[in-house]
Amino acid sequence: MEDKTHQEKVEKLRELIKEIDFAMLTTVDASGNLRSRPMSTQQAEFDGDVWFITSNDTTMAGEIRRDNRVNVSYAQPDKQRYISISGTAELVYDRARIDEFWSPIYKAYFPDGKDDPNLRLVKIKVDKAEYWDSKGLIPTVLAFAQALAGKESELSENEKIELS
Amino acid sequence: MEDKTHQEKVEKLRELIKEIDFAMLTTVDASGNLRSRPMSTQQAEFDGDVWFITSNDTTMAGEIRRDNRVNVSYAQPDKQRYISISGTAELVYDRARIDEFWSPIYKAYFPDGKDDPNLRLVKIKVDKAEYWDSKGLIPTVLAFAQALAGKESELSENEKIELS
Repeated sequence: MEDKTHQEKVEKLRELIKEIDFAMLTTVDASGNLRSRPMSTQQAEFDGDVWFITSNDTTMAGEIRRDNRVNVSYAQPDKQRYISISGTAELVYDRARIDEFWSPIYKAYFPDGKDDPNLRLVKIKVDKAEYWDSKGLIPTVLAFAQALAGKESELSENEKIELS
Repeated sequence: MEDKTHQEKVEKLRELIKEIDFAMLTTVDASGNLRSRPMSTQQAEFDGDVWFITSNDTTMAGEIRRDNRVNVSYAQPDKQRYISISGTAELVYDRARIDEFWSPIYKAYFPDGKDDPNLRLVKIKVDKAEYWDSKGLIPTVLAFAQALAGKESELSENEKIELS
């Protein structure tokens, strides 16, 4: 079922998410509860990692530092398109990326602009992406090479119907 | 910040989700990865628990049996409305609910109809709901009484801005 190259998978995912402005980012909180919140997707093109802008002192940033497992979900109800990305997140300060993603709107949150000490990027390494397109109940799975060896063998399970 | 009664919280959440046909249900898989998939919301009115129909042999059902922590997220992009529900899920067979939720469309998945031995309901006890309405970056938190004593004290953290 998996015969796409890494580059083809990246391009497929890029095409799927490009019109969706907000994703829901799910993290695990200190009590073990799963919480999600809308995050603005970056206009820069998806290149294999998913990026968001955040502040180092948000509850979410604390959750990621404590437990880096995340899910990013995208919903485009008018196209019946739904995407689930499983991955691991890290908080980074990457000036080149910040230059790429920066918009004057962020000035309201980061008074010191791109040099604001609280500015962070959430960098999410995609482990696995699954998507539902149109009304199909069977997801298409895109396994990314970053998965640990051995994990891929679980993928065939995904071909079962998830009754939605 | 919390002065709604339980009934008022239920009504608020019902109003928020009633036009949204699909939710993304996030679970923790056996490897600890967070996975989500679209689930059709039940037309019956929300009464404090969130319900979905599933089959006992889906990957998702196995994940819930192993780890009952879930997140249910709803996205309505045209209204800039996003909802996060943190809760615990259980798989139940509740005939009165099945009668309430049943639609002939399910016959394709459950050949034996309402008596199909694989038919299950996912019942999610809502612990906490957060929602973003219009372009506000600050979520409104609805804490439900089912939370363990002591958990409520964490809520004030939520009033911080989650930069999205």
